[in-house]
Amino acid sequence: MNVQAKPATVTTGPVIGSRKVYSSPEGRPDISVPFKEIALHPSANEPPLQLYDTSGPYTDDAARIDLEKGLDPVRAAWIAKRGFAAIAPREVKPEDNGFATGDKLVAPCPAERQILGAAPGQMVTQYEFARAGIITEEMIYVAHRENLGRAKALDSAAATIADGESFGAEIPEFVTPEFVRSEIARGRAIIPANINHPELEPVIIGRNFLVKINANIGNSAVTSSAAEEVEKLVWAIRWGGDTVMDLSTGRNIHNIRSWILRNSPVPIGTVPIYQALEKVGGNPDLLTWEVFKDTLIEQAEQGVDYFTIHAGVRLAHVPLTARRTTGIVSRGGSIMARWCLAHHKESFLYEHFEEICDIMRKYDVSFSLGDGLRPGSNADANDAAQFAELETLGELTKIAWAKGCQVMIEGPGHVPMHKVKVNMDKQLRECGEAPFYTLGPLTTDIAPGYDHITSAIGAAMIGWFGTAMLCYVTPKEHLGLPNRDDVKVGVITYRIAAHAADLAKGHPAARLRDDAISRARFEFRWEDQFNLGLDPDTARQYHDETMPKEAHKVAHFCSMCGPKFCSMKISHDIRADTERMAGMEKMSEVFKAKGSQIYQPETAAE
Amino acid sequence: MNVQAKPATVTTGPVIGSRKVYSSPEGRPDISVPFKEIALHPSANEPPLQLYDTSGPYTDDAARIDLEKGLDPVRAAWIAKRGFAAIAPREVKPEDNGFATGDKLVAPCPAERQILGAAPGQMVTQYEFARAGIITEEMIYVAHRENLGRAKALDSAAATIADGESFGAEIPEFVTPEFVRSEIARGRAIIPANINHPELEPVIIGRNFLVKINANIGNSAVTSSAAEEVEKLVWAIRWGGDTVMDLSTGRNIHNIRSWILRNSPVPIGTVPIYQALEKVGGNPDLLTWEVFKDTLIEQAEQGVDYFTIHAGVRLAHVPLTARRTTGIVSRGGSIMARWCLAHHKESFLYEHFEEICDIMRKYDVSFSLGDGLRPGSNADANDAAQFAELETLGELTKIAWAKGCQVMIEGPGHVPMHKVKVNMDKQLRECGEAPFYTLGPLTTDIAPGYDHITSAIGAAMIGWFGTAMLCYVTPKEHLGLPNRDDVKVGVITYRIAAHAADLAKGHPAARLRDDAISRARFEFRWEDQFNLGLDPDTARQYHDETMPKEAHKVAHFCSMCGPKFCSMKISHDIRADTERMAGMEKMSEVFKAKGSQIYQPETAAE
Repeated sequence: MNVQAKPATVTTGPVIGSRKVYSSPEGRPDISVPFKEIALHPSANEPPLQLYDTSGPYTDDAARIDLEKGLDPVRAAWIAKRGFAAIAPREVKPEDNGFATGDKLVAPCPAERQILGAAPGQMVTQYEFARAGIITEEMIYVAHRENLGRAKALDSAAATIADGESFGAEIPEFVTPEFVRSEIARGRAIIPANINHPELEPVIIGRNFLVKINANIGNSAVTSSAAEEVEKLVWAIRWGGDTVMDLSTGRNIHNIRSWILRNSPVPIGTVPIYQALEKVGGNPDLLTWEVFKDTLIEQAEQGVDYFTIHAGVRLAHVPLTARRTTGIVSRGGSIMARWCLAHHKESFLYEHFEEICDIMRKYDVSFSLGDGLRPGSNADANDAAQFAELETLGELTKIAWAKGCQVMIEGPGHVPMHKVKVNMDKQLRECGEAPFYTLGPLTTDIAPGYDHITSAIGAAMIGWFGTAMLCYVTPKEHLGLPNRDDVKVGVITYRIAAHAADLAKGHPAARLRDDAISRARFEFRWEDQFNLGLDPDTARQYHDETMPKEAHKVAHFCSMCGPKFCSMKISHDIRADTERMAGMEKMSEVFKAKGSQIYQPETAAE
Repeated sequence: MNVQAKPATVTTGPVIGSRKVYSSPEGRPDISVPFKEIALHPSANEPPLQLYDTSGPYTDDAARIDLEKGLDPVRAAWIAKRGFAAIAPREVKPEDNGFATGDKLVAPCPAERQILGAAPGQMVTQYEFARAGIITEEMIYVAHRENLGRAKALDSAAATIADGESFGAEIPEFVTPEFVRSEIARGRAIIPANINHPELEPVIIGRNFLVKINANIGNSAVTSSAAEEVEKLVWAIRWGGDTVMDLSTGRNIHNIRSWILRNSPVPIGTVPIYQALEKVGGNPDLLTWEVFKDTLIEQAEQGVDYFTIHAGVRLAHVPLTARRTTGIVSRGGSIMARWCLAHHKESFLYEHFEEICDIMRKYDVSFSLGDGLRPGSNADANDAAQFAELETLGELTKIAWAKGCQVMIEGPGHVPMHKVKVNMDKQLRECGEAPFYTLGPLTTDIAPGYDHITSAIGAAMIGWFGTAMLCYVTPKEHLGLPNRDDVKVGVITYRIAAHAADLAKGHPAARLRDDAISRARFEFRWEDQFNLGLDPDTARQYHDETMPKEAHKVAHFCSMCGPKFCSMKISHDIRADTERMAGMEKMSEVFKAKGSQIYQPETAAE
């Protein structure tokens, strides 16, 4: 299988109706932050709307994409001045690619990068810099990004539209680099940013920032062309994936990962135990600390930004799962549970946790402490096994911080609505407010084929309560491998959940987009309505199905009521009428002043 | 256009994997309540699961469907013994069908029914019977239906699985006819059941019962074959619509409605002002009380079970909408606002509300008091206009009750998550706990093409908080007219929201289905998993996409991990192992007793 990774093989060009713009924080022309700009119809008399953009250079018409060279290393200069030593790379071993040879071997990405590593005692992680009071370029970058490019706080009139209930989150009117630093120093936010991933456009994950979403990709036994995997990444971030986890198994995962990392503008996460398991032939009993450690170093040197580490699955927790309805459903969790039971020994991840910290610190790989005992059904939600693990993750968080590492915590899973909030509250308490990163949760088990929806309900709620990143669920969950359409639906569904959470938390700029699209609706600016939405292509296509003509895109009516009658049109008439009827409006003020008592107009009410 | 309404034109036969069964409440063999039964694989060693079934005789293999004859009038005997007089039917007028003639005229359904009406003072509504302490057959029917055919409360072990937070709802372990009566008498629940709709399988709508969903159908200018409209109804209830609103406009709506009612096993709702507007040529200014009143009688005699009446849109409320971002978005609301402004007079619906009550009482048509001023954007949520109308609806509720009518209240609309609960709380307070019936609400405005999802989030939450019925939203919302696939997706999405709410409220039997499907998952009973889900066809198709072979349907692994490694399989091993290791389980008890202190196994932890 040869790699045909040419530019033509991935999706490029802006999402219709938008263009890529760059903006620099005040006084830092060396830092260039991408945004997605939506120009509105002239009749709107509004400036273009600038939105958060996860899609990287792929949506920049001016960018030259060459997968073999990789993306421009935008962080290279920042990292260089921190003075890390170039280290001799770990040699690639046959087992790294599942012993694939000859035609079966996918070639590695030829883009060359010097491998860097921090010396013992040398500051390297964003957490260490933050603790030392140092503001990094990554911190400046994400501050500007979170402000959606705004140069200062919204004016007070605009700010008052943000009226959320934040459940103790402290979302500022305007994000400063110093605020970012202080949040990272407190362990409440992370910037997953391996020093060997210079192509990264930094992103911050924390309760006091915009809610982020993760999309999973991964090769499978049948398809493993590197270009195909990069396209999955490009596709997922095009629609709004903030980070991407590469959950590949089988052969060639080392070399495919090299293509993904060199071409990813978003943080890449992995579950190293998956590759370690491949190296021992798929038998969990044969796993050793040495194989796992070697895999950590292998992946860290490639530039992976965060690792899921299931160190909370301890020997003593395993029996707590024996009477569950659905046992252990996390792949990593079941591998470790199996290992613990087979050897009747404490988990080697738990035993060697400090060594893991030392390895991850060296490259600034962030922890995503895995929830190996998350519930796989509503019946198992919030049970003793799940919470025992969460308590252990709390212990481990403090160890990782002491070692200088960035940490986030993974969460469930399957949880009915009334049990969602206690998950968030307990996580904040046990884990010292380290960012929470949840899968859904799914609020009912009865809808295979629609679990993007069962889980979006739980995701929106837990995002509102304080979860910093939501891992998407596609319609194929429980049933099969997601295809391209499933990935898009999963990402857009989770953008909805994340945005609904931002609105409810009271993010100061979140409602700007809702209000812009609502104005477009009210003013029959159909193209603006499509373009301001999460998926302009689908919106336009749905409109076309009922009203295909180009003229309909400027029509002052819609297909729901037809031209003869339109409630929005009547509202415009009402607005014009009431503006003439100043007296009535005054009476309305009287009504409002009286509060709940119904105003009786002076005109006879008979 | 001639009607070709033959049985072959609607979808019949059970949803795959299920069959229709009937069950009678103890001692009442004359009352036969339908359920959907899912037989499980013999290896499950479980009885078939009996589920609530909205689909009517269409999914009964034994039923003979003849649209021209209509469905069997299952309520006829119950109604007959109440002694209502046959009344001379109102004559059908040319404007009832939009002056359609000749080829353009759809013939009425030939099924003949005697038109009944209560005399003044004669008890007729379920509310009146309930207040008088009388338990009707409809009440007995819905009690059995709500219990999912269970003959008594779940045993205590099963009952403890229901651990919801009900926010003041009082959901009993077991629903008795007397409980139904008392809820209706308190105005907290309704059974929309026009005495001229004998084909109805009664359904109860109230906070202390299972959450219901409504699907909208309606003809459009281009398609108006009666069989097509009946098929829309049949399709919507096949997937779980509890009630259906016919929002037809244009020509032939009287005659098409006759086909729908004679063939509907679910309550049918309408918005009479739509037809009234058609009768005056589409100009709201020309509406009169007389035209509206005549339309109420026309539709009531046909058997419509509930009317949306926008009597809360008062003259004084209209100016409150003038500065809204999206004005008035309810069609009925804008018609009435337009009328009020044009004449500068109080709404004729408000002025004639007691007369409306008298007409609706005569046939037991339930009120659905319309929210004509609901917000059309997050920006307008919970504003003065919306809440002023809600307060008026509270006044009107008390008047309708005094007149003997059943009442529910319509609610928003577009509401961000943090503003959802206050809607529910205020509605309960203002409207004396009359059932709330909400559209969504949509929790963000930025996803045209995905508003079934933006709204399912709000719908699940408000359902949890106490909303009794959720009006579905399809993916085409804001963009175009839903097609068959959109209707199915909308209905299933809302079944998810309603069920998630039932679980969270702690409905005693809701989790039985979740647990059954979770057991099927854990035991690799793929067919059972598909069949127990809301949409077996889609689940099976998704599974087929990755694992098409028949053998895969009994495979003890899935496409996500493949045969080499499976977390569920490992969990089975773990269960077997831990059962052998009784000592460990004992230690786990020690661990649990110690609470949050982590158990250290006695075996050396190095």
